[in-house]
This record gives sequence, C-alpha cells and structure tokens, in this order.
Amino acid sequence: MDGPKFLLEASEAETLAHKSGHTTVLQVLPSLVAPAQALARPPISNFHVGAVGLGSSGRVFLGVNLEFPGLPLHNSVHAEQFLLTNLSFHSEPKLHYLAVSAAPCGHCRQFLHEIRNAPDIQILVTDNHLNQFDSLSRFLPHRFGPGDLLDEDVPLLLEHHDNRLCLRTNNGEIHVDDLLRHAALEAANRSHAPYSGCPSGVALVDCEGKVYKGSYMESAAHNPSLGPVQAAIVAYVASGGGGYERIVRAVLVEMEEAKVRQEHTARLLLQVTAPKCEFKLFHCFQTSKKPTSCG
Amino acid sequence: MDGPKFLLEASEAETLAHKSGHTTVLQVLPSLVAPAQALARPPISNFHVGAVGLGSSGRVFLGVNLEFPGLPLHNSVHAEQFLLTNLSFHSEPKLHYLAVSAAPCGHCRQFLHEIRNAPDIQILVTDNHLNQFDSLSRFLPHRFGPGDLLDEDVPLLLEHHDNRLCLRTNNGEIHVDDLLRHAALEAANRSHAPYSGCPSGVALVDCEGKVYKGSYMESAAHNPSLGPVQAAIVAYVASGGGGYERIVRAVLVEMEEAKVRQEHTARLLLQVTAPKCEFKLFHCFQTSKKPTSCG
Ligand SMILES: [Zn+2]
Ligand SMILES: [Zn+2]
Repeated sequence: MDGPKFLLEASEAETLAHKSGHTTVLQVLPSLVAPAQALARPPISNFHVGAVGLGSSGRVFLGVNLEFPGLPLHNSVHAEQFLLTNLSFHSEPKLHYLAVSAAPCGHCRQFLHEIRNAPDIQILVTDNHLNQFDSLSRFLPHRFGPGDLLDEDVPLLLEHHDNRLCLRTNNGEIHVDDLLRHAALEAANRSHAPYSGCPSGVALVDCEGKVYKGSYMESAAHNPSLGPVQAAIVAYVASGGGGYERIVRAVLVEMEEAKVRQEHTARLLLQVTAPKCEFKLFHCFQTSKKPTSCG
Repeated sequence: MDGPKFLLEASEAETLAHKSGHTTVLQVLPSLVAPAQALARPPISNFHVGAVGLGSSGRVFLGVNLEFPGLPLHNSVHAEQFLLTNLSFHSEPKLHYLAVSAAPCGHCRQFLHEIRNAPDIQILVTDNHLNQFDSLSRFLPHRFGPGDLLDEDVPLLLEHHDNRLCLRTNNGEIHVDDLLRHAALEAANRSHAPYSGCPSGVALVDCEGKVYKGSYMESAAHNPSLGPVQAAIVAYVASGGGGYERIVRAVLVEMEEAKVRQEHTARLLLQVTAPKCEFKLFHCFQTSKKPTSCG
C-alpha cells in the first residue's frame, strides 16, 4: 500500500520508538499526532484533528476527522471515532492510550465509553502542553454509559459480535452485487447496536474493485452513534483511498421495518459525497440461533 | 393553553415552591423532574428523560427527550437540548441551575457549553440520590468549546443573534406560505451558527393554523448541533402540540450553496415523522449591513 499509513504493527512501532531515542512506544505516541493531523479531511471547519491510539496488542492506530460539505454537521466523523473504527476493523481488543491534538469533545468522550475498559483509557491532549496522560474517567466523570442500559454479558465495542443476520437466498445467479452484499452482511453481523437492536452494515467498492466494509456502531447516548456509511468511508480513507468520487458502488444491509433505519440517510450521504456511487439496499432478517450456511 | 406546561413564570414557580413547603424555587426543582419525564416522547428507547432548568429571570423551564423512529439516532433531541431550545424561545439570558433525571451524556455536556456561563451551570442528577448540585465544569473538565474557536465578542447561545438574512422579494402576491417563510426567516435570523456561517430556520404550521418556529443551533463540536426541524418540533411539543400528524406545512429558510445544508435532511425527517406535512425550501442571502426593510 502506497498511501498514508493508519496502522503500525507492534514491531514497526517499537522500531520507530527506538529510532526516535525513546525506550517505549508510549513515549513516541504524542509525536505521531501532528503527522496524523495532516491526513484529516475537514473541508468545512479546516480544523485538523489527529488521534493516535496504542492498543493492547502493541499496535498503533491513527484516526482523523472527516467532514462532508452540503449536509448537516452530525454526519461528521471525529478523529476519536475514526480511531475506534480503525481498531474495530483490526479486531484490536482494547485501547489503552490515546494521544489527540485537541481536547476530546463531549460527543467523543461519550462514544469512547462504548469500550468495556473505557474509564481506564489514558488520554493525552497535545495542544495543552501538559504532556501527561489522564484517565477518561477524569474527562467524563459521573458518566452515562452502557452500564446504565445493558446487562454485563452484552458485548461492547471492540468485543466479538455476531448479530445472526441472514439475507434471503437469491435465484442462484452470481453478480458483482452478490460479493458486495455479502461484505455488507458481514459488516452488519459485526455491527454494535445493542440499544436499538437494529444492526446494519455497508460495503463500498472503488473504481479499482477494492471493497471497504463499515459496521454501524451505536452509542448508549444515541446521537454519538456512527453510521455504517461513515464507518465504510473510514475504511476507505484508512486504506489510503483517494477522493470519494472513486467510490462507484455501495450496498447497505439492514433489517426491514427497523426502528432505526439507515437507508435514506445512507443514500443521501453517498449522493452528496460520492456522486458516482450507485446505491443498493438489501434487507436481512435475524435468525434466532447461530446461522450455519445461510446468506 | 390546555396541554402540559413547559414554562413556569417566576411567580408561579415561587407559589409552587411555597405550597410545597420550600422557601426557594431552587429547592423545588428536583421534584419537577419526574413530572417532566412523563412528557418525554422516546418511542425507540422508552427511556424517559426529564430536565428542569432555572433561568436568571426566575422562570422555570422543562425539557424532555424526543426520538424519531425510522431514522438514524442522531436525529434525536435530548432533554437538555430541548431545555436550552425552550430557554432560547423565551429569550432567557442565562441558565443557572439544571436538574435532570439521568446523568447528562457527553453530547449534552458539550451542547450546554454553547452558553457563555456554561462552566458555572449547576447540575443535579435525580437518579443518583446524591441530591446535590455540581458545576458543569466538573461534568466536562478540560473542555473543548466556543472559546477554542471564536472571538470573545461573537454571540453564544441564548445571546442576541441577528444574522442579517433576507429573502428575495416575490411578485407581491400574498399566500399562506408568505407568513410561514417570514416566520422561518425570523428563525434563521436567530440561528446560532458561528462555526459554519450557515444559519437556517424552520417554521411549521399545524392543522389549526398555529405556527411554530425553530432556529438551527450549532455546537463547537459540530455533531451535537440541533437541526432547525428539531428545534421547531421542540416548539410544537413545548406548546402542548399533539401527534406530529397534525403538522401540515413546513418551510425551511437557508442560504443557497451553503457548506452546511439542512434541506435534504429536514425534508426526510418531516417525511418520516410528519407524513401529512408539505415541505418547502426558500433560499435567503446575507446582507453585509443590518437590514432595514428587506425580507
Ligand atoms: Zn469529538
Ligand atoms: Zn444527552
């Protein structure tokens, strides 16, 4: 891959730390924030945010903010949300440390709480010159979170999800859309939607045929939830994707008659942001038991 | 008005406090939270939130959460946002105290920061049995807020706004839409959109001909911003409005080619929520000086 890197393997991160004269990866984290900021895409605010996270595997993840002109601001993806989406793609089980260019907003502090160890996440803000980590529990005390609404055994963000969704079988023909809808189904099956019970997933394909998957990720507080198109666009950007006009096809998979439906908003975001993209919706249904060969 | 009351005049609040055996209105605030919760409209979560605020005028304001099935969760209005919208309608200059049924989420703590005295707002959460007020600065320390982006003299939420917007003159005919578009223009002129520079306003009319105005209110953190349709629906609910099917007509006023455009999302929210509502858009333009007789 030639584009910018949004993931450093543990060994790469260690090599980088040693080359910079540090003994631990943690020490090099703040210095990666400014280069991350340069990768942000904020055409509305021109306010570049970079977030760099160290996961429990020793890998380092980058996140940047994305803004979409022509639509309301709630469509924006914050750097911390991008970062968590990036961790989720790579099945990183925990986020331990987070260095970010500006103080995380309340929306992001809330979204971060979807991780089980959220209160312990250590956060450093590079623009305040304090240069010290402080726990998320100090950034959002008296929190409202998953614990207020869910049983202990419900999987949280970054934990394994299988939503047991299936597509209705088709007539046996094979079409490029079949690949895409299976990718979107996979994304929907990994979707974190314990509050509404309405998981969804998106698959995008670019003009070179490369596929990007995005899972809808819900917040206990509803509004900070990240839509499936946004998650797929994060995958596109994190893979070094160029302009959004290179996205040519999109499939959304969600349940029919769901209380929370992404369809109209997903179509709208893609129409405005990726004008060459053809959009299709497929409805899925939830099986009561673990599926074996469906879909 | 026969419906539920979302505003108590200072004298009413004092009378109520004395009748309840209290000496101050502040003491009676927590007891108003449960009755407020009963007015919430959360068909997705069934999680009823009530917020009760005491303003600098001595008036008491209520807020409840609103949820809109069939759409993504970012369309929801939280009780604290409803409350601030209610204060804004009534030109209340400051919010001093806030009692709320559940710990405010990060999204709301961020939105509250659009008020100039935000860090000093005293918050009490009734469901944690602590029964004591604590400042917003303790609920959202190391805040990201307007001060990070705006000059000191830019008006914040609850302060006087005049966005100097005008509509293009029409051909002189008078039509019911003229009243509505002037109401929407007024709302747009009061809109708080200092970050994007894209103010907007909505006017709704119900089947009895009553008009409800809503101004778009922006957050420094973008995503917690409240859309103009949401604000107008708050006005509708706060005025004792019934089911949303009673809303028959809506006008949105915003600038053409704005970086932040409400049009598509506003139409969608109304289509899904108020199916009998006819939607119209009018573009406005911003005058460089204070308008005298335009619009
Ligand atoms: Zn944020
Ligand atoms: Zn909230």
